[in-house]
Amino acid sequence: MITKTIDVSSPIHPLLEQRYSGVSYDPTRIVHKQTLLSLAEAGRWAPSCFGDEPWRFIICSKQDNPVSWDKALECLKEGNQAWCQHAPVLVITCTSLLFDHNGAANNFGPYDTGAAAMSMCLQATALGLMTHQMGGFSADKARELFSIPEPFKPLAIMSVGYQLPFDRVPEQFKARELAPRKRKPLGEHFFDGAWGEGL
Amino acid sequence: MITKTIDVSSPIHPLLEQRYSGVSYDPTRIVHKQTLLSLAEAGRWAPSCFGDEPWRFIICSKQDNPVSWDKALECLKEGNQAWCQHAPVLVITCTSLLFDHNGAANNFGPYDTGAAAMSMCLQATALGLMTHQMGGFSADKARELFSIPEPFKPLAIMSVGYQLPFDRVPEQFKARELAPRKRKPLGEHFFDGAWGEGL
Repeated sequence: MITKTIDVSSPIHPLLEQRYSGVSYDPTRIVHKQTLLSLAEAGRWAPSCFGDEPWRFIICSKQDNPVSWDKALECLKEGNQAWCQHAPVLVITCTSLLFDHNGAANNFGPYDTGAAAMSMCLQATALGLMTHQMGGFSADKARELFSIPEPFKPLAIMSVGYQLPFDRVPEQFKARELAPRKRKPLGEHFFDGAWGEGL
Repeated sequence: MITKTIDVSSPIHPLLEQRYSGVSYDPTRIVHKQTLLSLAEAGRWAPSCFGDEPWRFIICSKQDNPVSWDKALECLKEGNQAWCQHAPVLVITCTSLLFDHNGAANNFGPYDTGAAAMSMCLQATALGLMTHQMGGFSADKARELFSIPEPFKPLAIMSVGYQLPFDRVPEQFKARELAPRKRKPLGEHFFDGAWGEGL
C-alpha cells in the first residue's frame, strides 16, 4: 500500500491508520481462497445486536468465479466500473431486515453489517490488501443477478485486491490515488457530553 | 482483557480476535481524555459514502461529565443498566439521515456509523479497554435528554472502560463474562460467488 500520513490529535492503531480506499488495483495479483477466508473470518467475529449476525457477503473472485465477478461488476455504476475492472475480487454486502431469532424487524442490520464489512477491510489491510466500499451500484440489479431473497437487502459492493506500485498507477488515476486523506475536524462529529460540544 | 479463544478456519488479526463485549467493568479505573481522543480519532478515519461522515458520537465520561453520564445510563434498558452502572464511559452513537453535501436522503448512514463505531471498539481493544455496544436503550429518551436534533437518529449506546480482573468479577456476571464466544458457521453467511453457496 502507498503510505499516506493523516492528521491525528491522538495516535491510532496502524491498522486503522493505514486503511484507505484507493482505486488502483493490480489485476495480475490473485487473491487466494485462504486470504478470502481470513477476510470472511474477520467479518464473522464482528459484534451484532442479539448476536443475530444479520450480514451476508457474496464474495466474487475473478479467478475462481469469473461469471459471478462479471455480474458484480455489472451492478456497479460506470464511474466505479472504470477502476473496479482491475479489482480481482468484488463482494456484495447484504443485510437481513429481520431478526433471525424471532422474525421481528431488525433496525440494527445495516449498522452491524457496516461493522462486519469494516472488520473485513481491516483484515485486508493487515494482509497487505486494499479495499474500497461503494454505494454507487444498483441494488435492484444485484438482487436480480444474484437472486438475493427477501428479507435481505444489498447495501454496498466492496472491491478487494493488491494495490499497484505507484510507478505503475495509470496517469488517469494518479491524482486520485495520491490525494491526501481528509476528514472534518474531530470536534464537529465527536462531542464531549453534550450535542455540539466538540471533544 | 480476559483472553477467549475462538474457532477460525483462517487466522485473523489479534485486534479483531481479542475484541469482545464483556459486562464486567472496573469502576475504579478512569479512562483519560487523551484515550477518548484516540477512540474518537479511530472513528473519525472510518470510510463513508461520499466521504460524508454521517456519524455523531456523544461521549459521556462519568469522571468529566457526571450529569451527562447519568443521562446516558438512564437511556439504557434496566438489564443493561445493571452492569453499565460500572462503566466509566457511555457513548451515544447517532447518524444523520441526510447527506451533508446535498441534503438528500443518506441510506448509508447507519452502515457507515457502524463502521466508525467498530473502529472505536478496535482502538479501545488496542489500548486494553473493553467496549460493548447495545441496542437495548430508548432512542426517544436519548433524543430528549441530549437534545439530539433532526435529521440525526440515535442508533446505539456503547460502554467503554477497563475490564475487571477475573478474580474480582461479581458472582452474578461470572458465567456471562467467561461464556465462550460463538458465531454461526462461516459458510452460512459468507458465500462463494452465489447466494447460499458457503465459502
